[in-house]
Amino acid sequence: MRFLIPLIYSSSTSGHYRITSRLLSAYLTKPQRSTLHPSFNCQPPSMAASEESLRKALAEKQSAVEAHGNAVRALKAAKASKSEIDAAIEALNILKLEKSSIEKQLQAAVSGSDGDGALSREAFRQAAVNTLERRLFYIPSFKIYRGVAGLYDYGPPGCAVKSNVLAFWRQHFVLEENMLEVDCPCVTPEVVLKASGHVDKFTDLMVKDEKTGTCYRADHLLKDFCNEKLQKDLTIGAQKAAELKHVLATLDDLSAEALGAKIKEYGITAPDTKNPLSDPYPFNLMFQTSIGPSGLSPGYMRPETAQGIFVNFKDLYYYNGNKLPFAAAQIGQAFRNEISPRQGLLRVREFTLAEIEHFVDPEDKSHPKYSEVVDLEFLMFPREEQMSGQSAKKIRLGDAVSKGTVNNETLGYFIGRVYLFLTRLGIDKDRLRFRQHLANEMAHYAADCWDAEIECSYGWIECVGIADRSAYDLRAHSDKSGVPLVAAEKFSEPREVEKLVIAPVKKELGLAFKGSQKNVVEALEAMNEKEALEMKAALESKGEVEFYVCTLGKNVPIKKNMVSISKEKKKEHQRVFTPSVIEPSFGIGRIIYCLFEHSFYTRPSKAGDEQLNVFRFPPLVAPIKCTVFPLVQNQQYEDVAKVISKSLTTAGISHKIDITGTSIGKRYARTDELGVPFAITVDSTKDVTIRERDSKLQVRVSVEEAALVVKSVTDGLRTWEDVWEKYPHHTSGSADD
Amino acid sequence: MRFLIPLIYSSSTSGHYRITSRLLSAYLTKPQRSTLHPSFNCQPPSMAASEESLRKALAEKQSAVEAHGNAVRALKAAKASKSEIDAAIEALNILKLEKSSIEKQLQAAVSGSDGDGALSREAFRQAAVNTLERRLFYIPSFKIYRGVAGLYDYGPPGCAVKSNVLAFWRQHFVLEENMLEVDCPCVTPEVVLKASGHVDKFTDLMVKDEKTGTCYRADHLLKDFCNEKLQKDLTIGAQKAAELKHVLATLDDLSAEALGAKIKEYGITAPDTKNPLSDPYPFNLMFQTSIGPSGLSPGYMRPETAQGIFVNFKDLYYYNGNKLPFAAAQIGQAFRNEISPRQGLLRVREFTLAEIEHFVDPEDKSHPKYSEVVDLEFLMFPREEQMSGQSAKKIRLGDAVSKGTVNNETLGYFIGRVYLFLTRLGIDKDRLRFRQHLANEMAHYAADCWDAEIECSYGWIECVGIADRSAYDLRAHSDKSGVPLVAAEKFSEPREVEKLVIAPVKKELGLAFKGSQKNVVEALEAMNEKEALEMKAALESKGEVEFYVCTLGKNVPIKKNMVSISKEKKKEHQRVFTPSVIEPSFGIGRIIYCLFEHSFYTRPSKAGDEQLNVFRFPPLVAPIKCTVFPLVQNQQYEDVAKVISKSLTTAGISHKIDITGTSIGKRYARTDELGVPFAITVDSTKDVTIRERDSKLQVRVSVEEAALVVKSVTDGLRTWEDVWEKYPHHTSGSADD
Repeated sequence: MRFLIPLIYSSSTSGHYRITSRLLSAYLTKPQRSTLHPSFNCQPPSMAASEESLRKALAEKQSAVEAHGNAVRALKAAKASKSEIDAAIEALNILKLEKSSIEKQLQAAVSGSDGDGALSREAFRQAAVNTLERRLFYIPSFKIYRGVAGLYDYGPPGCAVKSNVLAFWRQHFVLEENMLEVDCPCVTPEVVLKASGHVDKFTDLMVKDEKTGTCYRADHLLKDFCNEKLQKDLTIGAQKAAELKHVLATLDDLSAEALGAKIKEYGITAPDTKNPLSDPYPFNLMFQTSIGPSGLSPGYMRPETAQGIFVNFKDLYYYNGNKLPFAAAQIGQAFRNEISPRQGLLRVREFTLAEIEHFVDPEDKSHPKYSEVVDLEFLMFPREEQMSGQSAKKIRLGDAVSKGTVNNETLGYFIGRVYLFLTRLGIDKDRLRFRQHLANEMAHYAADCWDAEIECSYGWIECVGIADRSAYDLRAHSDKSGVPLVAAEKFSEPREVEKLVIAPVKKELGLAFKGSQKNVVEALEAMNEKEALEMKAALESKGEVEFYVCTLGKNVPIKKNMVSISKEKKKEHQRVFTPSVIEPSFGIGRIIYCLFEHSFYTRPSKAGDEQLNVFRFPPLVAPIKCTVFPLVQNQQYEDVAKVISKSLTTAGISHKIDITGTSIGKRYARTDELGVPFAITVDSTKDVTIRERDSKLQVRVSVEEAALVVKSVTDGLRTWEDVWEKYPHHTSGSADD
Repeated sequence: MRFLIPLIYSSSTSGHYRITSRLLSAYLTKPQRSTLHPSFNCQPPSMAASEESLRKALAEKQSAVEAHGNAVRALKAAKASKSEIDAAIEALNILKLEKSSIEKQLQAAVSGSDGDGALSREAFRQAAVNTLERRLFYIPSFKIYRGVAGLYDYGPPGCAVKSNVLAFWRQHFVLEENMLEVDCPCVTPEVVLKASGHVDKFTDLMVKDEKTGTCYRADHLLKDFCNEKLQKDLTIGAQKAAELKHVLATLDDLSAEALGAKIKEYGITAPDTKNPLSDPYPFNLMFQTSIGPSGLSPGYMRPETAQGIFVNFKDLYYYNGNKLPFAAAQIGQAFRNEISPRQGLLRVREFTLAEIEHFVDPEDKSHPKYSEVVDLEFLMFPREEQMSGQSAKKIRLGDAVSKGTVNNETLGYFIGRVYLFLTRLGIDKDRLRFRQHLANEMAHYAADCWDAEIECSYGWIECVGIADRSAYDLRAHSDKSGVPLVAAEKFSEPREVEKLVIAPVKKELGLAFKGSQKNVVEALEAMNEKEALEMKAALESKGEVEFYVCTLGKNVPIKKNMVSISKEKKKEHQRVFTPSVIEPSFGIGRIIYCLFEHSFYTRPSKAGDEQLNVFRFPPLVAPIKCTVFPLVQNQQYEDVAKVISKSLTTAGISHKIDITGTSIGKRYARTDELGVPFAITVDSTKDVTIRERDSKLQVRVSVEEAALVVKSVTDGLRTWEDVWEKYPHHTSGSADD
């Protein structure tokens, strides 16, 4: 049952997620976009099994209902006794009830969870998004001009969260790991993206409404059709359901032709007009532009930041004292001209990436700090578990590496560091898993690849990709630019190695092949070891062989006197090799959106008449660390508030004063909605109260100490619990309303 | 002599600088690019005067030499006495020497300084740039593909400097001023940039080589021609020199036709081929692209970040509690597809801007924190001083504002804050001036505009523009989008105002004008107060007036019974107005480049055999704050180094360990070249030395204290002098070599 791997549950919350960054890596191996869009919203197969058996049961029950209906009609026609007919009708009604019950179960099963769950996810998202948009965490860009799909602004609190996330990223990765951070332009000349493969292969398949010209992503239309059918049409049998699921599971492997054929077969039309659709054709997702005034130098807005690092490898390696391993990092904007952006901040046309390229000797992928993460335990979802339909399990990272589940120490180290990064930001560790790429998702050259996936109301979202990409990228740029992007290991003393030497005898070859001599020489020199040794053997036994010269497009006869093939011993002083690259790539916008959802909750107001919104951001990411409220509007309190504000500024604590006359309860509610962890209320000129957002507990602290107390907690030097223990408690019940 | 204002000195170091950002503002007022490229490398006129008198003196001397030569020849022809002829020849030789001396003076005058100065500036720049590129402060982008003009990467130390500058900008402006920071996309739909004027007017004039198609900036070619002529051809007279200078001074005012005519008149050809050139035509400097798959939605890469703020005004005003003043800020990439990028990091095709839009009531431009900057004193270059040929002077900011030189308090406040920002970064206050825009540089709507200019080897470079742009931008977007971008001042109690009421009597107008009634009604209602009152008076006196209806294109007779015009008293509860915007706009790359030059110096090595490079970055911006060196390669010292490294990481101090066996002197030299302020040398397991970069002084500190000492100085909690006083001095003379 290959089509069950991965199992696709096509609920409204499942989706077609794509990493913001390097999944590209995967699809470059294949002419089709086979793994560009992995559908990894996998579910345990028990569910699929139950769905399948439900469909069977439903079909059986339907037959039973029909058979029984016929029986009843037959009894009536035969004028059977009333009691006999009544009994038959009662049995029929029972069957109908049973059928209806199975329908309900099936309905629940295909919507990916119980119906209520889906509804409440939807409602939760609505509440969170309403708060986020109302408080300007983000805003559809160019709103006054009715916006542009897939473009969003971060408003003041969102922008502050983003800059906190990036500052922590820099601290956690660049500073702590001594990475070489670079900053390259977004405008990129064509040659670079030709080398990387983006110009030729960074495409999605598109169809057009044949009358209006409106564009759609071909796979989205097919997917929506299959999902709709599976969810809403309960009459389709188990066989048809299996077929549709097979289509969903193999969606990313379908060629343009196959996709077009399916669209025709299912009679899919343009969603808006019901007009017929064109055949699918590839659309390049890069924003194209032109560099300079001539119009002759095509360029693109980079689809990822990584290429800027690869093309600088030589200089960075030199900067690092010609030593491996080292990591380079870059934070910056990337661009993808999506055909039809969906899901708010999760699939956008411009986004911030933070990427790390860790260059390492392919023969030694150990990591000096590996021991620091070896005991971390978290949800991992290895390939085998996905194939056998199990779910993600808590696994000790050290075990995953030592068993070979994770390919190497360095990859494991970064998985551990990403786990620490995300959970310290406030991502719920129970809704974070590391999912290994399936074989068909990975590029042929990739050694291993894991995605940090975060569960939110849209399902499991790929937020960080951590891939061992071997030497692929550096080789691609070496080949295109002619500049060797290699590292060297100097031997402490020279080593003796045996080398194959192919020496064409140009004089003889010239006599034999005249003008074609050069082609033959080059072809001979290009032989690999196996070919050369076979030729050597053949020449020694037969004296002449037929040899195919591709640049001539034909075989030529090679005689023994035309080439000498031998093995020679040489002394080597160093080993020159193309480093492997291990690449953790972070979709910052996706992480932030998931963080918003994981931080959001509601609680009843004190009067119980409304639900108040709260973001439980840790101080590290909170957009504002502290608010300062004079309890009532009076000059004395306002002066104290200004003194505290000044000391907060000196301490580098972002804060806000609210001197409106609004009730203190309303002001707390406003500040909770922005996720501000602490509020200082000025209710005397000597002592003030500090309130913690989630517990709503308050302590009394002197005016002089207030800023320092807040700073110590936001800087992580002590916890709120420490503060609660040390300072007198404020017990006025009226504060929160 | 209008052409002397501004005086252009066309030395090789002068230039055609344009602010990275909003000079656009200035040129939007005029159909020509009159002030898009202000040439503000002004010089005191004494110099120009001396040049002019030198040219005159040279011409006179030339005539004298010729006349005397003729006289000598005449004497010889007349066979005068030898002593007579010798005396005449001696006099001629003296005249020739005098002429030669004047030539030298003139040569020096036209090259903008003495020739040696220009040379040493060039040499200084070469030394600085060599160090910057070799140590990867910056790198030409895509170097392995031979680069792209006008695109640069920041390598590790440059990237660190940049992120320190931006972090300090955020602290100094966003945090300390409670600004609303936003983060908008670079991809921008056409409608936004149509409203702002960029689509129609953000152009440079270009000419093409008629045979090869190579593009040049028309004004650059004309400018280069004039400069070359003025500097290298000393035979041109004062009149011709004046003409060329006039061309240079008015370069930015020239229309495409006038520019083309000059190019023809001077016979300017393509510099590379000497082929004829096309007529000049406008080239839009924005990178164009297409949003979405249809190809029907043109978009551009934003040329500045400001528009993202303006279109969000309504939401931001609401976020600020519907209160003015408030400031919004944005840091981000901006793009300009320069025709021919020049001068390294100073004119590039992609750059980071940091922009502030401070929205303020046009009737109250006071600033609550103005008193904090009022006593600052620094170089200012008001319009009048430029016009009268004086140079920049130290002026107390408070005086400049109170005298009206600076238009208002808020503008003055930002000028002061920018001064503090730049000097705290390490910009030399003696090479920083605030230059006011001349009347012809400013847009008609701008109230006042000052540029922070920093002097570097390329001349005075515009790095920050601080403009009071009045209501222009908000009005432009209101008009285009139909969304009112206004603020309201609520009155504490309603105010009585007299309002003009124009009430067309539609029935009478309908009878008189039938189908044209609507046009007449609209025209009547559109009258301004003056027109309406004149009509009222005329109707009262004459009973009928001729009235021009522009939508009909003709006069119509209006009778007394067709319209009632009166003044009525109304109660108003608020005043609705479009806020003014004061905009400080920072070209981050330019500031960083100038900072590099201001920080760079060389000093002889201890042996005196070479010059060592040093960047005297303050700890605030230094890319790495500290290096850690084990004095010799030994496990014990390396372990101590690791302990110190760990405590530096905990303290958040970026640092680097160097365990190579290189001599300590060489390691110091390497670290000085990166501008690292402190080096910890491990020469025992208990105490270590800390060396300060510029003084090369060393103190002895315990291993435990080392990180904290470095942290306290880099955080600005104490100075190196404090440390020097407190700790024992290390006096080993051998440390630095």
